[in-house]
Amino acid sequence: MESIGVGLIGTGFMGKCHALAWNAVRPIFGDVPEIRLVHLGEANAELAKRKARELGFEKASDDWRAVIADPEVDVVSLTTPNQLHPQMAIAALEAGKHLWCEKPMAPAFEEAEAMAAAARNSGKIAVLGYNYIQSPAIRHIRSLLAEETIGRINHLRIEMDEDFMADPDAPFFWKHAATSGYGALDDFAVHPLSLIHVLFGQVAKVMCDMSKPYADRRVDGRNRREVETYDIASALMHLENGVSGTLQVNRSAWGRKGRIALQIFGAKGSILFDQERFNEFQLYLSSGRPAEQGYRTILAGPAHAPYGNFVPAPGHGLGFNDLKTIECHELLARIASKPANLIGFDEGLEIERTVHSMARSFAEQRWIDVR
Amino acid sequence: MESIGVGLIGTGFMGKCHALAWNAVRPIFGDVPEIRLVHLGEANAELAKRKARELGFEKASDDWRAVIADPEVDVVSLTTPNQLHPQMAIAALEAGKHLWCEKPMAPAFEEAEAMAAAARNSGKIAVLGYNYIQSPAIRHIRSLLAEETIGRINHLRIEMDEDFMADPDAPFFWKHAATSGYGALDDFAVHPLSLIHVLFGQVAKVMCDMSKPYADRRVDGRNRREVETYDIASALMHLENGVSGTLQVNRSAWGRKGRIALQIFGAKGSILFDQERFNEFQLYLSSGRPAEQGYRTILAGPAHAPYGNFVPAPGHGLGFNDLKTIECHELLARIASKPANLIGFDEGLEIERTVHSMARSFAEQRWIDVR
Amino acid sequence: MESIGVGLIGTGFMGKCHALAWNAVRPIFGDVPEIRLVHLGEANAELAKRKARELGFEKASDDWRAVIADPEVDVVSLTTPNQLHPQMAIAALEAGKHLWCEKPMAPAFEEAEAMAAAARNSGKIAVLGYNYIQSPAIRHIRSLLAEETIGRINHLRIEMDEDFMADPDAPFFWKHAATSGYGALDDFAVHPLSLIHVLFGQVAKVMCDMSKPYADRRVDGRNRREVETYDIASALMHLENGVSGTLQVNRSAWGRKGRIALQIFGAKGSILFDQERFNEFQLYLSSGRPAEQGYRTILAGPAHAPYGNFVPAPGHGLGFNDLKTIECHELLARIASKPANLIGFDEGLEIERTVHSMARSFAEQRWIDVR
Amino acid sequence: MESIGVGLIGTGFMGKCHALAWNAVRPIFGDVPEIRLVHLGEANAELAKRKARELGFEKASDDWRAVIADPEVDVVSLTTPNQLHPQMAIAALEAGKHLWCEKPMAPAFEEAEAMAAAARNSGKIAVLGYNYIQSPAIRHIRSLLAEETIGRINHLRIEMDEDFMADPDAPFFWKHAATSGYGALDDFAVHPLSLIHVLFGQVAKVMCDMSKPYADRRVDGRNRREVETYDIASALMHLENGVSGTLQVNRSAWGRKGRIALQIFGAKGSILFDQERFNEFQLYLSSGRPAEQGYRTILAGPAHAPYGNFVPAPGHGLGFNDLKTIECHELLARIASKPANLIGFDEGLEIERTVHSMARSFAEQRWIDVR
Repeated sequence: MESIGVGLIGTGFMGKCHALAWNAVRPIFGDVPEIRLVHLGEANAELAKRKARELGFEKASDDWRAVIADPEVDVVSLTTPNQLHPQMAIAALEAGKHLWCEKPMAPAFEEAEAMAAAARNSGKIAVLGYNYIQSPAIRHIRSLLAEETIGRINHLRIEMDEDFMADPDAPFFWKHAATSGYGALDDFAVHPLSLIHVLFGQVAKVMCDMSKPYADRRVDGRNRREVETYDIASALMHLENGVSGTLQVNRSAWGRKGRIALQIFGAKGSILFDQERFNEFQLYLSSGRPAEQGYRTILAGPAHAPYGNFVPAPGHGLGFNDLKTIECHELLARIASKPANLIGFDEGLEIERTVHSMARSFAEQRWIDVR
Repeated sequence: MESIGVGLIGTGFMGKCHALAWNAVRPIFGDVPEIRLVHLGEANAELAKRKARELGFEKASDDWRAVIADPEVDVVSLTTPNQLHPQMAIAALEAGKHLWCEKPMAPAFEEAEAMAAAARNSGKIAVLGYNYIQSPAIRHIRSLLAEETIGRINHLRIEMDEDFMADPDAPFFWKHAATSGYGALDDFAVHPLSLIHVLFGQVAKVMCDMSKPYADRRVDGRNRREVETYDIASALMHLENGVSGTLQVNRSAWGRKGRIALQIFGAKGSILFDQERFNEFQLYLSSGRPAEQGYRTILAGPAHAPYGNFVPAPGHGLGFNDLKTIECHELLARIASKPANLIGFDEGLEIERTVHSMARSFAEQRWIDVR
Repeated sequence: MESIGVGLIGTGFMGKCHALAWNAVRPIFGDVPEIRLVHLGEANAELAKRKARELGFEKASDDWRAVIADPEVDVVSLTTPNQLHPQMAIAALEAGKHLWCEKPMAPAFEEAEAMAAAARNSGKIAVLGYNYIQSPAIRHIRSLLAEETIGRINHLRIEMDEDFMADPDAPFFWKHAATSGYGALDDFAVHPLSLIHVLFGQVAKVMCDMSKPYADRRVDGRNRREVETYDIASALMHLENGVSGTLQVNRSAWGRKGRIALQIFGAKGSILFDQERFNEFQLYLSSGRPAEQGYRTILAGPAHAPYGNFVPAPGHGLGFNDLKTIECHELLARIASKPANLIGFDEGLEIERTVHSMARSFAEQRWIDVR
Repeated sequence: MESIGVGLIGTGFMGKCHALAWNAVRPIFGDVPEIRLVHLGEANAELAKRKARELGFEKASDDWRAVIADPEVDVVSLTTPNQLHPQMAIAALEAGKHLWCEKPMAPAFEEAEAMAAAARNSGKIAVLGYNYIQSPAIRHIRSLLAEETIGRINHLRIEMDEDFMADPDAPFFWKHAATSGYGALDDFAVHPLSLIHVLFGQVAKVMCDMSKPYADRRVDGRNRREVETYDIASALMHLENGVSGTLQVNRSAWGRKGRIALQIFGAKGSILFDQERFNEFQLYLSSGRPAEQGYRTILAGPAHAPYGNFVPAPGHGLGFNDLKTIECHELLARIASKPANLIGFDEGLEIERTVHSMARSFAEQRWIDVR
């Protein structure tokens, strides 16, 4: 393929992030086709035009179907709100486009299943935007696990916390209504699950608890409305490979801004990671003299691919948007039938199955087998 | 009371620690009676004599009953292995001695109940050696919680991890046999529970999972034996005050040496603490400009009583043994009928009830109400 | 200006970094003209063509004069080796182009003076690529200093360390020859000096020491050659505003990868920063209760402009290349006659004057007044 | 020696610290003679009596000469203010007592010389209370340096900072008057110099700058007085072993409580240490794969003697007072003619010579050879 035409639907947080990745992927990696930014779709024609100009797209439209129908578009970046994914994703796949869809797939599991089926039927590449699996540190941790550097893994703890919903005086908004889903479980838990998927494989069974930090919130000057979603979820789990662990998420955790903390314990050492400092990770090895054993803080550098494509010197740091550029490069690799580190629709379906199993575990107050 | 006579039974890790505390409590605090180190008991007469000489005790005996019977002994420090506690503790209380007993109380809950009953009947002071509740940082955190500095608490995570059993090549020993108890649950979980008790109160219900990092261990050159205890335990929990949380323990966690990590989330901020750096804690407040909000790392100093009794300058650091000296000072306060920060036998019983509830939850694979 | 045409000379570490910035500045910031990547110059025609294709430039040339002469080029990114700067920079300015030149200006001070003169005569914008001054944390620290949040400043320590020359077994290369300059002083010291310039102003006088970690290095299998440059430099200094301080650099500091550590002490608090974790900084305020005073670790977020242009959520992190994009945005602001945070040629000259003063101080073993 | 009789003069911060050490040294180490706390001297008879009771001394006196004259006293702990050291130290040595004197030796160098001469003439053990050299981490670092674990050392940075004089609104007190000495140089610099002495040996030459954060301070409601001492000192230095380095001290450094930060760079790695977290240190080794190189944070444990005498489990932490107990144990070793890690009067004299050389360097604005 000499060049590849891109359609972008949605220009919010993730839409801009996709556009940046499409702009940067060739200068960063070099080994990809020419990227043509063909067609941008937004809800409003005026906004679409302005965003196309800013983000470098040739055409703009207020009709997402026009983006999908555009014959110059080879791959569609789908970054609209969650509930719009099923209709748009299926249409894009049916139109014969490759699809790069933001996570999670869909609010309802049946819809996600339909999306996965559409992907299978299309024969096209369909992947999800789980960008945290792309950091050089996480990719290196995966290779350390594969090499058994810390021995056979026996236990895992993972936490994801932010504080954007921590203020009890903030008003009720759509994320507090049951229509938005379970709460932190679908908002956050999918991210740790994407890491678990890449590093360890499938979750076998779960036991989940959920709680609400604030029972109600103000809706206007006088009235309050009951909060229907759970900002906090904690789960015990067993993975299919026999590893036990816990997964905890909290979107009302004052002080946490983008924490995704991993603790991995093995027979010969352990590994720690925190997304808030994702340019580093910690490794403990039980070899050598005890007097010199300790967690080593390893700064990402050219030794941790593909860091070197961004900066030739270690310790200089990648940014959040760079993770999307790596993801974009992986997508282009997969389109070119090369090996790629990605979460496709079938794997994404397993992540969502796990989330729904957690919710069911909480509802029924018992362990649930994910499959 | 002009002076107080001390009997010490056991001179291992904790026995020495008690002896150091009895030696240091008056020079450190000043406001206590003269401490007379009267009588030391050890299993072996020779060892008893040597230890009495080293630790500063007047008399030595290979009969613990002689220590208890000694009329000059007012308070008994009981630091023998766990399974010896019930007999010795009850005898000491019946002999009219105050009792400072190392935790946990006893392997079996019924024995712990008998000990608590003996304490109540005796009218004497009977307290447990939960020294982690004594650090200036933890004591200050308790006062911050009481003042609602971080608002009403809504979630809590606590972990305790060490690696002294992490080596898979180490041979089977008594802690791997079921006769030693459940595993990390009784070894470790009591410590986080003591902190929960002091900071938040009782646990209402628990859902626990346990796992073994290594299925079997070598017993001699050729044979291996199945490991019967669980080095790892993870629990979901609800406290009586409505707070949800998790408690996790792992005694095979490579890299962790004395970690007891607390994360406390409230409506106005959060607090972090780790026993491996117990001379500091972290406080996040959601007040002021967002641009200057961040976890502040606060070094213990004279502003955090009773640090100033040890060192007049901040940031110089207390040691593990100093926590026992503070505990000793609290014990003397209680004996003198003054307010004291301690876990008595009745409160210790609740901690052990929680541990047994966790084990039962794992056995029955369901939530268990602690009471 | 509806659009701006860019010429790029050099495509190494910094050349690619400039190209990425030119690609990203409009999608990131929106409020800038259309960027046309017009003409790329490299030493070799083949490489020039390949790089133009990868980095998105329309034309390629093996003659840097062609880039400068191109009438479609409005601004030249100059990223060639240091010793080529004077000739190319002066030519570009004389051709009426704006100039974005990588630091430092030139090996010899007289050449730097000639460049600054050319800039003044041209009436064009001429700025240097001191990108570390662009991080949201540093920019926020500058505003905190301006607000006197930590009171009047009285002392400053700054260190810059990396380990790319730390290996004693690595062979002699051009940076070990005196022809390359003094050593760490010109390699590194300019960066801390750029931060000092932006945060505090001019250096008044310096007293400098320098040393060589390794006296000689191998040049082939058998022979060794004396190292002529100094990997380590340490300086005492007084700023024009009366603040005392120290500046230390070491390019053979095993373990350091991209450290630029600042310690700023004022009458009401202090600030710490380290480029290896440039998405955070630490602030200590002496207000409030001593029991809750501590360094707060503040994660960069939308409250620290222009972070929000990259990511709308705090704690997600910018990367090293993002700093260049911010610098590019400042350059475009200055071209549009808006206020901008940049180090122009006149200011860059002061930085280089300070470096040469340090070298002279070492040679003469005495304090040197910079002016 | 079956037992050793102790006399203590002074019961302030350091006096109490000595008393605690004398109380703890036998229970902690076991291998020392019986310690008899014989005679305590304080300026006031009432206070002397009370302190003797609290700290466990048999006799109390308001005459320091009585303590020294007491035939039951074998060793004198001298913890009075600095300016009283010469008279008392010389008298104690002349009375045939071993001497444990707090640092620094004396305000004037000639007095320190007289003390060292008295020690030499007496044939008695005379050591200084430089307790920071006693921490298990520092002692282990010394052994790593001796083993050349990080190769030949080429550079050293050391800083000592606290904030007890940082408040500009605090009134003028004796430490602001020139009669108290130079300022941070004698207050603080002796500590880093003690570490340099133990780890590297003598300082050969120094170039020092000093500054005052606050020019004057209030003396009463209306008036202000010029501050005559320097809270900040920064020095370039060369050691006799050829290593270059810097030494910086600041007693007005807001946020620093007990910082003594070491950075040691060698040909094969580097070591970091900070007294504020003295139960850990950091080691970087350049061996193995670059992808797994990083600073390892090593928690003190039984592998770092004599930690194990205090606590048998790693990561539990020693306290500031424990360092004095280790020092006391070293003193008893030296008295018993065994090898000991201590700074005697002759070595202490070299430290003070270095301090005075620094002051002279500042006065004369030039490098000064210490010898």
